[in-house]
Amino acid sequence: MLALRYQNKQLNVTDVPEPEAQGSEALIRVTLAGICNTDLEIIRGYAEFEGTPGHEFVGIVENAPDKNLIGKRVVGEINAGCGNCQLCKAGDARHCRGRTVLGIHKRDGAFAEFLTLPVENLLVVPDEVPDEYAVFTEPLAAAYAILERVHINDQSRVAVIGDGKLGLLCSQVIQHKKTPIVLIGKHPDKLSIVNKYGIETALVGDINWNKEFDVVVEASGSPSGFSLALNLLKPRGTLVLKSTFHGTTEINTAPIVVDEISIIGSRCGRFEPALNLLKENMVDVKSLINETYPLKQGVKAIKHASEKGSLKVLLRNE
Amino acid sequence: MLALRYQNKQLNVTDVPEPEAQGSEALIRVTLAGICNTDLEIIRGYAEFEGTPGHEFVGIVENAPDKNLIGKRVVGEINAGCGNCQLCKAGDARHCRGRTVLGIHKRDGAFAEFLTLPVENLLVVPDEVPDEYAVFTEPLAAAYAILERVHINDQSRVAVIGDGKLGLLCSQVIQHKKTPIVLIGKHPDKLSIVNKYGIETALVGDINWNKEFDVVVEASGSPSGFSLALNLLKPRGTLVLKSTFHGTTEINTAPIVVDEISIIGSRCGRFEPALNLLKENMVDVKSLINETYPLKQGVKAIKHASEKGSLKVLLRNE
Repeated sequence: MLALRYQNKQLNVTDVPEPEAQGSEALIRVTLAGICNTDLEIIRGYAEFEGTPGHEFVGIVENAPDKNLIGKRVVGEINAGCGNCQLCKAGDARHCRGRTVLGIHKRDGAFAEFLTLPVENLLVVPDEVPDEYAVFTEPLAAAYAILERVHINDQSRVAVIGDGKLGLLCSQVIQHKKTPIVLIGKHPDKLSIVNKYGIETALVGDINWNKEFDVVVEASGSPSGFSLALNLLKPRGTLVLKSTFHGTTEINTAPIVVDEISIIGSRCGRFEPALNLLKENMVDVKSLINETYPLKQGVKAIKHASEKGSLKVLLRNE
Repeated sequence: MLALRYQNKQLNVTDVPEPEAQGSEALIRVTLAGICNTDLEIIRGYAEFEGTPGHEFVGIVENAPDKNLIGKRVVGEINAGCGNCQLCKAGDARHCRGRTVLGIHKRDGAFAEFLTLPVENLLVVPDEVPDEYAVFTEPLAAAYAILERVHINDQSRVAVIGDGKLGLLCSQVIQHKKTPIVLIGKHPDKLSIVNKYGIETALVGDINWNKEFDVVVEASGSPSGFSLALNLLKPRGTLVLKSTFHGTTEINTAPIVVDEISIIGSRCGRFEPALNLLKENMVDVKSLINETYPLKQGVKAIKHASEKGSLKVLLRNE
């Protein structure tokens, strides 16, 4: 089958053997896959991954131990636990130490014609949700995870830093809490995507808030975003850290202690609430799509996704 | 009066005018003051403070609007709020934006014969608590604040990093929660201070725990302590950040997101529970005292406190 491979610091679309489903795994024919910033970070060395990247997908079950699943349109949670440890038994494969992670850690990912995942990771996509929306389930779940980690209500003053894909999704998800929210970014065209839904937006250069927010979500993935977040937060406020990137950041930790800030690391989320948001058409993901490439043009697609100002680039199997 | 002054990057004991109590302030004759790492950081440029440092003290009220207070032996919370803002009205002067902080921010401190503080900051010291113990109220309150910010019970596995004054106090305070706790440090002699009270201790070089703790308290004030803390914490664990220091730290933020760590900044605490611990003799502070100098030898005392391996150095007014 065709796959976009990252190996020896090289990115190529090549022919590789089809993966074999083992144990409780299903074999899935990938219909559509999304390129995420984490994929771009992987290509910069993050997570020391080699193989097929890609963890945002929608596909059709080709084969599975549960025959009812065959032919179903599915999305899949990306962490596959060992199944035996305390965390897995408590239902938290996301933090299993022996876990594999689709396209990120010891498991080939979605930039290929086929992938395998345990059947317990799969969720059937409701008919109302087209592929182009369903492929956003994973990043939308990551955005929704904020609400499961931090108490936000209609009295909270919330800022999201970063008008990239993640920031645009986070701001829309948080808005449904009827929270006074502002999205802070550098690109008027990107900010306008959510501005039209009544979300307040601001350009980084224009803001002069000082310690006024209860919660700030750092979704820009830049060290300056981290410092800005500390300046925006009220004492005892909460900084939600969403972005992973390769390398270290220079941080002045004193304000964290002096203002008694809480920093909450937040990664993946549950797919079910994300699929519900898509089903109810409560989040605009369509406006985030820049372009769709066939898998065989994967290298070009990655290049496009890496360009400054890019939003979501998709890969389609034809 | 005599005061140890830090001005133009110089430290000197000099004669300065006695401070004048204003409004609701009391004038306090300082009996004993403790040198804290924050004082040493101030002398390195932290908080851009100039004047009389020192915020750990016990003293006698010389004058006060409430005449009943005169002659009483007191300790004092170090943050003096504006009294008018929302935070002050909610009883949280510690985070008032217009606050002064004794010996740290816009208010001369305790390394002097006299200081002033609002009477609402003062707590009368129980007779059972001698000056040498009462002077530890402020750092002990800072240690106790951890229990007010983080849920710790007898099932939590807790590590404290740093066998300096703060780490020794934190480990003793947390032990009273019947928590399995380990103090990690670099100095066998310091570790032995709490080891004799049944607290497990370990040398940094000897440990091989990996993601096994629910809560880690970073009290070493070093960047390596921060990295170590991230390695020790279970996924979704809590890192309590206690130390403030001058400058920035290189931090790899990815593990915070991947393991969904919570980082809780924690600074000052309430004095009442700390005074209770001292009254009930539940914390050994005596073993932490290295030496007591007269105020006029303040520069020498600071030098002693700055030496590698030093614990608490006190300044006495004679």
